[in-house]
This record gives sequence, structure tokens and C-alpha cells, in this order.
Amino acid sequence: MKSKTPSESVTVFTEIVLPNDTNNLKNLFGGQLLSWMDRAAAIAAHRHCKRIVVTASVNNVSFAQPIPQGSIVTLEAKISRAFTSSMEVFVDVFIEDQTVAGKKTLSNEAIYTFVAVDQLGNPINVPAIVPESDKEKKRFDGALRRKQLSLILAGKMKPSDATELKALFFPKEELEN
Amino acid sequence: MKSKTPSESVTVFTEIVLPNDTNNLKNLFGGQLLSWMDRAAAIAAHRHCKRIVVTASVNNVSFAQPIPQGSIVTLEAKISRAFTSSMEVFVDVFIEDQTVAGKKTLSNEAIYTFVAVDQLGNPINVPAIVPESDKEKKRFDGALRRKQLSLILAGKMKPSDATELKALFFPKEELEN
Amino acid sequence: MKSKTPSESVTVFTEIVLPNDTNNLKNLFGGQLLSWMDRAAAIAAHRHCKRIVVTASVNNVSFAQPIPQGSIVTLEAKISRAFTSSMEVFVDVFIEDQTVAGKKTLSNEAIYTFVAVDQLGNPINVPAIVPESDKEKKRFDGALRRKQLSLILAGKMKPSDATELKALFFPKEELEN
Amino acid sequence: MKSKTPSESVTVFTEIVLPNDTNNLKNLFGGQLLSWMDRAAAIAAHRHCKRIVVTASVNNVSFAQPIPQGSIVTLEAKISRAFTSSMEVFVDVFIEDQTVAGKKTLSNEAIYTFVAVDQLGNPINVPAIVPESDKEKKRFDGALRRKQLSLILAGKMKPSDATELKALFFPKEELEN
Amino acid sequence: MKSKTPSESVTVFTEIVLPNDTNNLKNLFGGQLLSWMDRAAAIAAHRHCKRIVVTASVNNVSFAQPIPQGSIVTLEAKISRAFTSSMEVFVDVFIEDQTVAGKKTLSNEAIYTFVAVDQLGNPINVPAIVPESDKEKKRFDGALRRKQLSLILAGKMKPSDATELKALFFPKEELEN
Amino acid sequence: MKSKTPSESVTVFTEIVLPNDTNNLKNLFGGQLLSWMDRAAAIAAHRHCKRIVVTASVNNVSFAQPIPQGSIVTLEAKISRAFTSSMEVFVDVFIEDQTVAGKKTLSNEAIYTFVAVDQLGNPINVPAIVPESDKEKKRFDGALRRKQLSLILAGKMKPSDATELKALFFPKEELEN
Repeated sequence: MKSKTPSESVTVFTEIVLPNDTNNLKNLFGGQLLSWMDRAAAIAAHRHCKRIVVTASVNNVSFAQPIPQGSIVTLEAKISRAFTSSMEVFVDVFIEDQTVAGKKTLSNEAIYTFVAVDQLGNPINVPAIVPESDKEKKRFDGALRRKQLSLILAGKMKPSDATELKALFFPKEELEN
Repeated sequence: MKSKTPSESVTVFTEIVLPNDTNNLKNLFGGQLLSWMDRAAAIAAHRHCKRIVVTASVNNVSFAQPIPQGSIVTLEAKISRAFTSSMEVFVDVFIEDQTVAGKKTLSNEAIYTFVAVDQLGNPINVPAIVPESDKEKKRFDGALRRKQLSLILAGKMKPSDATELKALFFPKEELEN
Repeated sequence: MKSKTPSESVTVFTEIVLPNDTNNLKNLFGGQLLSWMDRAAAIAAHRHCKRIVVTASVNNVSFAQPIPQGSIVTLEAKISRAFTSSMEVFVDVFIEDQTVAGKKTLSNEAIYTFVAVDQLGNPINVPAIVPESDKEKKRFDGALRRKQLSLILAGKMKPSDATELKALFFPKEELEN
Repeated sequence: MKSKTPSESVTVFTEIVLPNDTNNLKNLFGGQLLSWMDRAAAIAAHRHCKRIVVTASVNNVSFAQPIPQGSIVTLEAKISRAFTSSMEVFVDVFIEDQTVAGKKTLSNEAIYTFVAVDQLGNPINVPAIVPESDKEKKRFDGALRRKQLSLILAGKMKPSDATELKALFFPKEELEN
Repeated sequence: MKSKTPSESVTVFTEIVLPNDTNNLKNLFGGQLLSWMDRAAAIAAHRHCKRIVVTASVNNVSFAQPIPQGSIVTLEAKISRAFTSSMEVFVDVFIEDQTVAGKKTLSNEAIYTFVAVDQLGNPINVPAIVPESDKEKKRFDGALRRKQLSLILAGKMKPSDATELKALFFPKEELEN
Repeated sequence: MKSKTPSESVTVFTEIVLPNDTNNLKNLFGGQLLSWMDRAAAIAAHRHCKRIVVTASVNNVSFAQPIPQGSIVTLEAKISRAFTSSMEVFVDVFIEDQTVAGKKTLSNEAIYTFVAVDQLGNPINVPAIVPESDKEKKRFDGALRRKQLSLILAGKMKPSDATELKALFFPKEELEN
């Protein structure tokens, strides 16, 4: 199976925050944004493997700033790394307010994992990812550490086997002292 | 501010999976479930503090099994722990298929964090939680460890200060050897 | 077919009143509430008989008080009585406003009737109901009178045969004079 | 206030039954039809009095036949009678299937009651109705009997005062024997 | 195939402009109106030929005046002319504001073209139209000119063959001078 | 006011065709696509002028091929030319089917016109457009001809004054003969 680059499946989404998407402060519901991010990430994953894809997990997502009604929200979803049948997808969220200035800011990022399945729902292999830009390479490298953390939290890996992750808590010099 | 129990704000949600909620395998979109879970969790958080609440983060959520169109999905959201102005909320998801047997199974659980804010969007204090059942106590205890992990991943806490979390990777006996 | 209690199929629904659900006074549309009540009642009926159920009729529903945008609305649907292939379902509606007090009030009740059908749409038998609480018993007893009224209004029963209902208009003492 | 005829405010609604409006037999949800009927009736009531109107009650509605996905549903709402500040509205529902024949049938009728209110939600007077056709006259006459039944069921009128309704159960000749 | 009149398939649609249908000036989105007009026109076309119909084109539509939130919008769709397998449909849009006066104005008109297809999507013949009123006759006559313009713009007809349309630009007297 | 290029405001939209968006052949409703195109075009126009924009007109749009349920639809909206307070926007629509091949084709193009308005709804000036690519230049040039055609069809310009458009019907050599 031929490898692919992240930009071959990049998916862009533009949405306007309508009244029904907002809470009593007239800011976007977190749940609505989660749903939009899942949809953008699913299309990116589908474009990468040309198969039916299902959401496997959502990693730690934080909502740093409120997004007011009327804002234009742009989501950009990109595959960061592919494993046997799963794909990690980053979603970057940008918002523009509706003033004349139209300030555009990176609002937050989320990480989704999708699995490719056949018509019966069984996992099937997906192409590997070859990162190109520096940002893509950094996210590619981090994907393994995040996978280990997921496996540990799910009780499917022993913490002592998570070499990469361990280094995060006990940098080499500290362990040697 | 008077403490409260988790059951004082428990929130139950029942939904039917309609055609528009499903992918090409006629299973529920992950993003739709994320949105429902956020809504249930937000109401539970609101009931606990009687304030406007905003989603602060979503922790690792996994989608273990497909949920077919026509399923009845029940969500139960409960506060697991309250910190100064934030609340951790567990959402348990149960599904019933539509056969005569109507098998009901625990499909998955998710953890959302909400912050209580005033009319200007500034954080305000919320009541503490007093867990009652064994399950509530276990989730209460784990909340601190999850908070540390979030802070480390966000670069706001040094791993060496995360005493509780550290113990997960290096059990006491191992460290003493 | 084994009888069941009302609590075996009780169904709870929580909804937030969003802008699109409201009229020009920013209160919930009656039609939206009717639709939510039908959905809650249908799930309760389905849970009772584990069959496909279709709405047969809606009895007199009154909308006593306006429900403002942002309110949290809780619906509780419970089977009051089962006949051969039909089930009468009560839906109690509670509202909470979004003030700090979060006052919760019983807003109104509605009565729906559902029929259980097979895959071809033909009626099939459903389990009987054994009421437990006092409220459940009272509703169980009233169901027969309501059924008679429906039949008379539809021209399918002679008023003089509706013994129970007749007593409502002409209490015994009056008839004997 | 000048009287009006029913045809001055007649309201016609055409809808197609889409996948999300249907149950597992691919027939229209009763709740969706209830919501459409309320909307049509509300517009008719608004057109009659040119005021904000709120749903006061829904009378006995029966769902005689299933309405399959893809059907074209036409609703016709007409004021049958106006009281001080309330209006009774009949909604006739017609369905057309999508065959070449395009058979059109009267599927069912429903009766809604609306109240006209001012900006503060207080009831205000509405114009009287002058029925024209035979059908309009028949519905106009029946409106008083239905109002009495509502008041009795709500415990606001003594059955013995409901002269019109009483006659339904004990026709004159029967009482005199 | 028997001819039909425009009034045999006239389709009326009534909608209320809800918050989610509006932009930041609280006026109806043009795109929402386009979607409603398409739906009304599609039902009229379906009623004319009793076949599945698909949108073939939308002609020049102009949005002359803003339609504020809360307005009641009535759409009336009528076949203006039928060609071999296509139908031209006019949609007239009327708006009523919600003041006591309830002023009703013709807001704009749009022209859609639909094609009748069989279950495989192949075009099939439709009945001819016999216009009755003066307005219907005028629209019937104009339909041929509009069809020529479409064909020219799509590069499927030479301008010199569009006799009717040519006359629009060079009235007879001008050409003869 | 500083001129801008079309690419400064290009807007990309990705949508999946869900069951509720489709007709009985399970192909996308034309009206749904019209609504998506309007939304994409409106955001592009807003980004160009940073003002509230309202749809002024939709030019001839043709729907060449059916778009089946499950397709991924990508819309790309770009300003082709700006006049005093109006902007002409082209929307190119691409579809991908969901096979492994994932064939991507240009499905159709539409032309919308938007007007920039202030908070009171009065037209205000917008920046000029400087086309860059060959395609952008060609569309820029055609915009004037399309504007003339609109004005003639609306009866606001005499055909004999539409120099550019006239040339379309009577090429120079033909007129000179």
C-alpha cells in the first residue's frame, strides 16, 4: 500500500455560529464544536484511506476561549500518523469575529482517532503517512507517545513498557541521579 | 457554600438514533454522541452550581462498539468532583437494541470538565461534592490524578510535582528498589 | 405474556429550550413540546412491549404556563394501562428556570395512546400493567373511563353503554332521584 | 372589533416526509405531525387576530392510518370559533402517495385551541367568527360542547351545568322515559 | 398524455422565519429562501407529472427586500409551461409582518426548471400545460424565450437561431432602419 | 479603499450528503445545494468587505448530474468582481463518491451576487478586486456582461445600451454585413 502525505487528505470546513448552536451567553456550545471537529476529522480520515471510517477515540480537547454567535469558524483536519488500521487526526480550529477588522485566531486543537473498516465493520489496513512540514513531523513523533498513554489508561499496556511516555515524567538525568 | 451529593444533579437523557445521525454503515456518528454527551454533562453541571457553565475540556473518550440506527441511547451524567470553579462530569452511555429482547448494555463512558461563569464569563466558585456510593468515591479519588495529567499535558505543571500520577508509572516498591 | 409494572419502562428526557424552539415571546412552541412528549411516550411504550409502536391518539393536553427560552425541561413518561394491543402513556413535564434558585415545577401532563404492531403494521398483543404506587393505581383506574370517552367521541360506542363515564355526569344520588 | 370569516385566515402547509421524520416502519412519527399541525394552527390563529398566540390545548387527535416516508402531506388550518380571547382551530390533514396515481386522502383532523396575548403575555380580545359553509357552521356549533367538556375535565365546570354536553349522553327522549 | 392546467398542481407553503434562518441583521438568509422555493416548486412539478422530479436549473432570482425574523412567508408554486420532459415553475413569495396590520406584500418571484425522471434517472415525458388566466398565459409565452437564453448561455444554441430572444435586443423597427 | 485579490477571501466548505438532504432517488435535493452555495458565497463576500452582506440575486444555475447520498461535496467560493457596493461570487462544486477510487469531479458552478450593507441595511462601498489567475481574469471580464443582462431582464437598462452583451448576439462581422 502506497504511503501518502498529510496534505493529500487535508479537509477544510467553514461554519457560521447560528443561534441554535449557542448557550445563554450566546457562545458556541462545546458539544456542537466537538461534533463539527469529528465530521471534519472523519472526512480527512476517509480521504486518506478511501474506506468507511469510525471514530475510535477523542483525546484531551480543551476549550480555551468562548466563540460568540455570528463568528465564522474554520476547521482544518489533517492526518498526523497512521498505524495498522487506525489514523490519528489533528483538527485546528480558527475563528474570525465579524468586525471590520475580522481578527482571525487559532482557537484550539483536538486529536481524534479513527479506524478504517470494511462493509462488515472489521478493521482493515490503511496507507502509512509521510510527514513533510516541521509541524507535521512533530505531530507524527508525538503520536506514538499519545498511543501509549491511551493504552495505559485503558489498562492494555503496562506503564513500565511505555518507554517514550516514561521519559516525559522522569527525564534521563533525573533517573540517573 | 453548602456541599452537594452527585445524585442531586444527576441528569438522564434518552435519544433515538435517527437516519441523519448515522454514517454509511447505519451506525451513530461519533460526533453526534459527543454532542449529546456534552449536553447531558452541561445540564448536570448547571444543576450542581445553578450557574452558566461552559465546556472546559473533554478527556479521553473511546467508542468501543458501533451503535446502530434505531437504537435507544440513554445517557446518565453525574458530577464526580468539584474543584474551585470547575466540575468533572462522568457520562455513562447505555444502548438498547430494538429486538424483542431489548438488550441493554453499557456502551462507553466519557469525562467532561465544565467551568461555572458569571454573566461576564468570569469563573465563580461552585459547591463541593460529597460522594456517596462506592463508584462515586472511586471516581472522586481519580479526579485529582486526571487533573494533574491535564495540567502536565498543557505544560502547566511539572511532572515531578504530580505525586499521584507518578505513582501510576512507578509503583512504590519499584521506586524503592 | 407476563405482566409488568409501570416503572419497568419509565422514560426520562431532558431538553434545553433553544432559540429555534421558541415563538416571538421567546417561549417554547406548543408543537415542539407535543413532539418531545410523543417521543418520550413512544420510547416508554416500546420498552413495555419491545415492539414497534405507533401513536394512536393524543388526549386533551393543556398548556398551563409559558416555558421560556433557556429553560431545562424534563419529561417523564410512564405506561398507565395496557389494553389488548394498545397502551395509555402519561407524560409529566417539569421545568427548571435558569436562576440560581433553579425552581422546578410540574408544568403539565399529557396522555398519549400507542398501539404495538408487527413488521407489517398489524396490531399485536402487549403485556398487562400492574400499577404499584397510589398515583399509578389512580391513573390505571381512569384509563377505562378515558377509553370510553374516546370511543363515544369517535362514534364507536353508544353513550348509554359507557357506564363509568356516565357516572361522571350523573352521580348515583342524582340518577336515583 | 369586526367579525371575520374562517376563510380570511385559512392556512395551508405542504410538507414532504423525510427520513428523519419516520420510525422503523418508515412511517411519519406522530409527534412530528403534531408539531406541524400546531404550527399551521398557530399561523391561522395569528392571521385571525394579528396578535401573538400561544397554544392553550390540544383536543383528542387520532392517527387513523400510517403516513409513509416520501408522502406529500398537506395541512389546512381554519378557525372554527372564537371566544373572548381564545380561538378553536381545526386542522385537516391530507396525504398524497408518490405513485403515478398520486391518491389524495383525508388522513385525520385535529383540534387546537390558542389564546391571543399581548407583549406581556396577558390575554386580549379577538374578533368573533362568522361561519359561512355548512361544514364551518357545524364545527362552530360543536365548539361550545367541546369547550364545556374541557372545562369539566379540568374540574372548572360542574357536569350538571354543561347543558349541551349532557344532551350527548342522555338524549331528550331517553331522559323523559 | 392528457394536458393539465397550472391550477391542478398549484402548491402553497407557509413558513415562519425562525432565529436559525436569519443573518446578523435578523433577516432571512437568501439560501434558506432558495431552499424553500425549490421544495415548493418540486412538489408542484411532481403533482403535475406524478413522477420523480429533479431540479435542472434556477433562473435569475432577485432578493428585493429583507424578510425579518418572525415574518410569515407564503410561497405559491405553479407550472408555467411544460416541454418534452421538463417543467418551468414560477414561485411567488409573499410576506406578512407580525404587526396588528399584518401587511402582506409580494416579496419576489423565482423560476425553477425541473425534469421528470424514472426510477433509473432517465428523463420521461410529462403532460402539456394549458394556461388559463392572463398571468398564466403571459408566463407560458415567456417560457420559450427563457429556454432559448438558457441554451445560448450553456453554449447549446447559436444566438442567431434564438428568434424570440433576438427580438428583445433588436425590436423590429430598429432592425429595419 | 485598498483593492484585494480573489484568493484573499476564498472560502472552502465540505459537506456530507445525509439522508434528510435527499429525494426519493437518494440524490441531493437541488434546494439543499442552493442553500449551501449561498452560505459559502456569503462568507466569501463577508471576508472580502468585512461587512454584513445580503444575497441580491442568483444567476442561472444548472444541476448537471445527480449527487448521491453519502457523497462528500466540496464548495469553493471566490469573488469574481466587485462593483460599487455589490460583489459577484462564483461557487464551484466538486463531488467525491465513496468508493475506494474516490473519484472527484467538478459537478457545477453557480453565480451569486451579494450587497454589503451597514447596520441599518443601507448599501456601503466595498474594495475592488484585482484578478490574478487566467480563470479569475476571465470571470472578472464576464461579470460586466452578466450585470448588463440582469439589468435588462429587470427592465432597468435598454438593450441597445448593453454594448458588451449585444456583441454576444450579433458578432461584429454579422452586424457589418
